[in-house]
Amino acid sequence: MSKGITSREENYSQWYTDIVKKAQMADNSAVRGCMVIKPYGFALWENMKAELDRMFKETGHVNAYFPLFVPKSLFEAEEKNAEGFAKECAVVTHYRLKNDPDNPGKLMVDPEAKLEEELVVRPTSEAIIWNTYRDWIQSHRDLPILINQWANVVRWEMRTRLFLRTAEFLWQEGHTAHSTKAEAIEEAKRMQEVYATFAEEYMAMPVIRGRKSDSERFAGAEDTYTIEALMQDGKALQAGTSHFLGQNFAKAFDVKFANTNNREEYVWATSWGVSTRLIGGLIMTHSDDEGLVLPPKLAPIQVVIIPIPKPNEVINEAADEIIAALKAKGVRVKYDMDKKKRPGFKFAQYELQGVPIRIGIGKRDLENGEVEIARRDTKEKVNVPFKGVAVYVAQLLETIQNNMFQNALNFRAEHTTSVDDFETFKEVIANKGGFVSAHWDGTEETEKKIKELTKATIRCIPNDAVMEEGKCVLTGNPSTCRVLFAKAY
Amino acid sequence: MSKGITSREENYSQWYTDIVKKAQMADNSAVRGCMVIKPYGFALWENMKAELDRMFKETGHVNAYFPLFVPKSLFEAEEKNAEGFAKECAVVTHYRLKNDPDNPGKLMVDPEAKLEEELVVRPTSEAIIWNTYRDWIQSHRDLPILINQWANVVRWEMRTRLFLRTAEFLWQEGHTAHSTKAEAIEEAKRMQEVYATFAEEYMAMPVIRGRKSDSERFAGAEDTYTIEALMQDGKALQAGTSHFLGQNFAKAFDVKFANTNNREEYVWATSWGVSTRLIGGLIMTHSDDEGLVLPPKLAPIQVVIIPIPKPNEVINEAADEIIAALKAKGVRVKYDMDKKKRPGFKFAQYELQGVPIRIGIGKRDLENGEVEIARRDTKEKVNVPFKGVAVYVAQLLETIQNNMFQNALNFRAEHTTSVDDFETFKEVIANKGGFVSAHWDGTEETEKKIKELTKATIRCIPNDAVMEEGKCVLTGNPSTCRVLFAKAY
Repeated sequence: MSKGITSREENYSQWYTDIVKKAQMADNSAVRGCMVIKPYGFALWENMKAELDRMFKETGHVNAYFPLFVPKSLFEAEEKNAEGFAKECAVVTHYRLKNDPDNPGKLMVDPEAKLEEELVVRPTSEAIIWNTYRDWIQSHRDLPILINQWANVVRWEMRTRLFLRTAEFLWQEGHTAHSTKAEAIEEAKRMQEVYATFAEEYMAMPVIRGRKSDSERFAGAEDTYTIEALMQDGKALQAGTSHFLGQNFAKAFDVKFANTNNREEYVWATSWGVSTRLIGGLIMTHSDDEGLVLPPKLAPIQVVIIPIPKPNEVINEAADEIIAALKAKGVRVKYDMDKKKRPGFKFAQYELQGVPIRIGIGKRDLENGEVEIARRDTKEKVNVPFKGVAVYVAQLLETIQNNMFQNALNFRAEHTTSVDDFETFKEVIANKGGFVSAHWDGTEETEKKIKELTKATIRCIPNDAVMEEGKCVLTGNPSTCRVLFAKAY
Repeated sequence: MSKGITSREENYSQWYTDIVKKAQMADNSAVRGCMVIKPYGFALWENMKAELDRMFKETGHVNAYFPLFVPKSLFEAEEKNAEGFAKECAVVTHYRLKNDPDNPGKLMVDPEAKLEEELVVRPTSEAIIWNTYRDWIQSHRDLPILINQWANVVRWEMRTRLFLRTAEFLWQEGHTAHSTKAEAIEEAKRMQEVYATFAEEYMAMPVIRGRKSDSERFAGAEDTYTIEALMQDGKALQAGTSHFLGQNFAKAFDVKFANTNNREEYVWATSWGVSTRLIGGLIMTHSDDEGLVLPPKLAPIQVVIIPIPKPNEVINEAADEIIAALKAKGVRVKYDMDKKKRPGFKFAQYELQGVPIRIGIGKRDLENGEVEIARRDTKEKVNVPFKGVAVYVAQLLETIQNNMFQNALNFRAEHTTSVDDFETFKEVIANKGGFVSAHWDGTEETEKKIKELTKATIRCIPNDAVMEEGKCVLTGNPSTCRVLFAKAY
């Protein structure tokens, strides 16, 4: 098969879109900016969701579901949050269509079915949830509330890209309520760490854990903790955020609790989310000019078995034995028995779809008591004794997972540059790309100026930043630590 | 604790609402007709979803995700479908809010951000999906497509009731595409049977498998297969439907395939769905005046262990041993160590929440080498030797599951009446309730007349209806089989 994937060197952006579409992950839809997530892409999302959901539950959270719509009066209650999302929200104004008298067979909005109050399609659910929490919380005994929701949200983005930025996307949003500030901050940091662990251990995508500068914070938050990944084109991707919301939403929605001294206090809040955007990050971290490269822990198909040149009784029997042994080890395996497609076509297809391991079973190899095993990440092939296939494959899946993480980690190390003067800063951002670690004087003004001059933004103040005296890379004013700059998605 | 549940006899409708709210299943929200599904209710839905999803995958289906919005021009393409949903759909007309100059701090719809084409919030996804399938299907080799979607949908219902009828609800919708009529019909029937199996084996809710009359069919379908359950108040509940859509959507969206003779044909379609409405059916099938009664296979907590009167070292140790043994058997168990609540309060709480088995561990029983086990369904209590608890409980969970199904089956048998004259028909519908099995002349006119006179509708023509000559219960005209009438939710 001809893959028709643009190379990364030629056009990174087109390469990304080619991969998403040709690997059958997602496609554009008839609705501006909304995507169709195709079965293969959705199977990946299901695996990601299952692991995240398990991690949320292990840290004490439960799932619930809140309405899709937010009445305008609730939406506007927390002013900063409202201001942050007002410019990009879909608004329901009517609840009925009727036959269009001027166009037989066509429908029109029924002007008589205008809503008294407009409904915003949730861009995020703090407003509707905190309006509900008011009824659930009276006493410190009702706290903490540790709720997560899996949902679709809508943000009317003008420039959209499959998975990375779409008008509708799927995500989870945690919304927790606490009796103390310290507990809320601890929760927000805990979830940042859950996200980082998921990104690194499952997606094989190394991330920097850090805190957002004031101007990059979530609208309505006191502090935003972020995980930042680095893509192969040297641009950063914000992969997940966890917000300490202070008492902002409690005050906006009048959510108070009686403390142990029976005094009323406002409740402390966090919210945290990751979305289908992670799939974009996964693709751009690992994939190559031949197609997707998926980490074994999340791959919908971990191992594909291909009969060479086509299935027959002997090969099927050998395949069945391997399948049984792999399934017993919990490996997701597929046997491609299609007789109409040739092995070369199949090789290319599964390469394109990023299946971590391919097992080729041919007559001659079988006679030698062997099968051929090919790795997607390194493209290495090796003949392995038939009897030991399952053990070998299980081990190899781990090796691939680790190798992918290590490669991404090396790439990031090579593309993180410590810089002390602004000429070098501009040069690195413009040519080498990646993270630039530089001193910053802590002002919004400087941050804005740097963005204007270089398009780079402060991705985060890393959790592990060393406190040291330095001079701001732009202004020369005093600085207490280095922060990470990069151009970003 | 005082439960404050209205008795069924006093007011069945209020009893239902009391159960939903007091058992912490769901609550109303600030959005007209939309509900908040609370963690306990959502945990039940997660268990239902997991089993259904497994059954869908075992029958060859994969999940995907399509946009929330349907452009008006696509929505109106299949005329009957559009007509069926136009009167109850939420319409997005604008994509931005702005500050209201007349009301500082308030927002208003920005008239400059009016959409060129209105977007309907999906009430069902045939339109958006078949518009997509056109691009996916060229040849018979692209068929069948067997896709399911878990999603939220919106139908602007005027009279809403938690779970049973809400403006937004959660559901799954399968949308399949086939090269032959026979294959599509087979698929639609297969999914009816999957739903029936799920209802009976997991929800312990017996259902009648049947076909809808013309007037009760899904808008845009050629045939609607349904499963109908009977609630304790004698009203029927449509619990799931599976539609043979013929070529209606293929024609509306111009979806053709080249058959094996390389001739173009329209594609054949099915769609099928169940929703959070099932939770309403579950509640009304089994629960009693003390609260929820949940079938063990779906209960979020299958067994609760309560220390009597409160936790101490000896009791905790015994509890830990039981928990380990139960978990090893895959039982979902909770140990309630709350020291502030008394056993009686806890008993009432878990009774209210329908936990199938309660284990009480007290000092005296322990000294006798026993614990007390109470069943939620029959309220029977029995002392069981400590050593055999796990085996006993695992067996009892099965017994309860079977007993609940058998009870519901008996109730249905007692409330299914074969009737041959219209006076009796009216009398049974008005007083005894339940299903009435009667001859019908097959005309829409008669069906309508009966509905006007009795409020009963034809729930279905049962799959196992015996072909026999008879006379229509209303008109006396010839009939070929009995159909089931009932008042319905």
